[in-house]
Amino acid sequence: MTRRDDIPEATPVRPTADLPKAGAFEKISAVSNPKIKHIRALQMRKYRAETGLFIAEGVKLAADALKAGWPVDTLVLALGAMEHPFTARVAATARARGATIIEANAPVMEKVSRRENPQTVVGVFKQRIAGLDAVAKHPGLWVGLEAVRDPGNLGTVIRTADALGAAGVLLVGETTDPFGLEAVRATMGSFFHVPLARASVDAFLAWRPSFRGAVVGTHLSGTNDIRTADFGEPALLMMGNEQAGLSDAVATVCDALVKIPMAGEADSLNLAISTGIALFELRRNRLTL
Amino acid sequence: MTRRDDIPEATPVRPTADLPKAGAFEKISAVSNPKIKHIRALQMRKYRAETGLFIAEGVKLAADALKAGWPVDTLVLALGAMEHPFTARVAATARARGATIIEANAPVMEKVSRRENPQTVVGVFKQRIAGLDAVAKHPGLWVGLEAVRDPGNLGTVIRTADALGAAGVLLVGETTDPFGLEAVRATMGSFFHVPLARASVDAFLAWRPSFRGAVVGTHLSGTNDIRTADFGEPALLMMGNEQAGLSDAVATVCDALVKIPMAGEADSLNLAISTGIALFELRRNRLTL
Repeated sequence: MTRRDDIPEATPVRPTADLPKAGAFEKISAVSNPKIKHIRALQMRKYRAETGLFIAEGVKLAADALKAGWPVDTLVLALGAMEHPFTARVAATARARGATIIEANAPVMEKVSRRENPQTVVGVFKQRIAGLDAVAKHPGLWVGLEAVRDPGNLGTVIRTADALGAAGVLLVGETTDPFGLEAVRATMGSFFHVPLARASVDAFLAWRPSFRGAVVGTHLSGTNDIRTADFGEPALLMMGNEQAGLSDAVATVCDALVKIPMAGEADSLNLAISTGIALFELRRNRLTL
Repeated sequence: MTRRDDIPEATPVRPTADLPKAGAFEKISAVSNPKIKHIRALQMRKYRAETGLFIAEGVKLAADALKAGWPVDTLVLALGAMEHPFTARVAATARARGATIIEANAPVMEKVSRRENPQTVVGVFKQRIAGLDAVAKHPGLWVGLEAVRDPGNLGTVIRTADALGAAGVLLVGETTDPFGLEAVRATMGSFFHVPLARASVDAFLAWRPSFRGAVVGTHLSGTNDIRTADFGEPALLMMGNEQAGLSDAVATVCDALVKIPMAGEADSLNLAISTGIALFELRRNRLTL
């Protein structure tokens, strides 16, 4: 099974010189195989940073990544997975773009996907993340997350930003790794559609004066009611860390501090929930049913 | 250390006959102790259902539960935890209400809290959940969750319901266990403040005609825009399952099906996010900053 002809093509292959060389195809049944160890190691943030790679689990996520043009490195498929026409097309597309296709038995799939019910497809993709220049490049309402810690929150915010038509998500300071398994998974595919940028707090503060839109921070001591706030677009909605909220340094450079009205005995909303409500309030006149 | 005098009292003890007998105090250092096995087993849904007990981890959650008057069964404390005055007061309150206080060494704490960095307090409380009559008893806007599967989503919805002043949370059909560790933890203490009720789909359908408020379902095929929806209170906002949305049976008995306007490539919002946005929209004129 190394003949290219055996794999149907999802997209017509242009017969030009710059066409990537079709990737290799191999079967692996030993969990000790170095390529498998390499993919497993991508569950660690340090190794992801060193290699510039990350994992997208499941055929849906892999298809989303390919459709959005993300550079693919490897696709690991369970034995028999290619009998499913959609999976076969995903594999063919990845291979035509130069990815290595690995067909793996059950024990290897389990190692690679670290789940009790392993996925039938595990994709390895190249990381892509922009700097602050992406904010001007994609005009609209950006969501900024300072020092976000929980990967589920980060992934849910990316998914919400996509669904509510935000322009992108900007990570400020030391945050959880957006390329971690749990963060990518929680985006439900939006990871591959939403522009993602990253900056240190210092770089953010230095960039701030050059941004021509409003920077709006959510803050428990905010005096602007999110229901009456309208800052137009472009704008940047800055959300603070789960425990501490926005840092003083970042809060100081905001044009306005807004607050979500609350009732009851809870002292705060979950970060992803407050981001969702704030985004919806700021964009409510720009959304159509 | 069995003398009552050693433990400071948080609340004055009334010298009446109906005062509960102060609970026992014991030290446990063997992970094989039957009481420890019993508490560990409460991590399983089946054992929670059999015993009617559940776990609240951490001194904050235990204090919230006691403050809200939840019946306490046992409090497990790490060695030295009572040197912390707040923890000592929590333990004294629990003991005065008849709870058994267990002082446990590190290996036992680890078994009981199943974490790498175990909490210093693990509380065992008695489950309390209402039936459909709670909806009329607590007038306002209720949130109904049909067949919710993810405990994190359920916990976050309870926290959000508290923060946005909803009257209660109603679980309809087969749902994840609200008394599970992860669900309780995700409420951040709101679990003990928000009225919680449960009903089968059949019981819900039978009860529906007797409810004098509007039942509003969120549905992808809804034609009512959540931004213009105003149903007054009492009302019940029904949210569907993460994968399938509302069942036809439940959607049919709704007075209106509403939809949250969306943009972008995401095909849906996370359940807790859509609940947050819908709740905020329905209650936006009833909240104050």
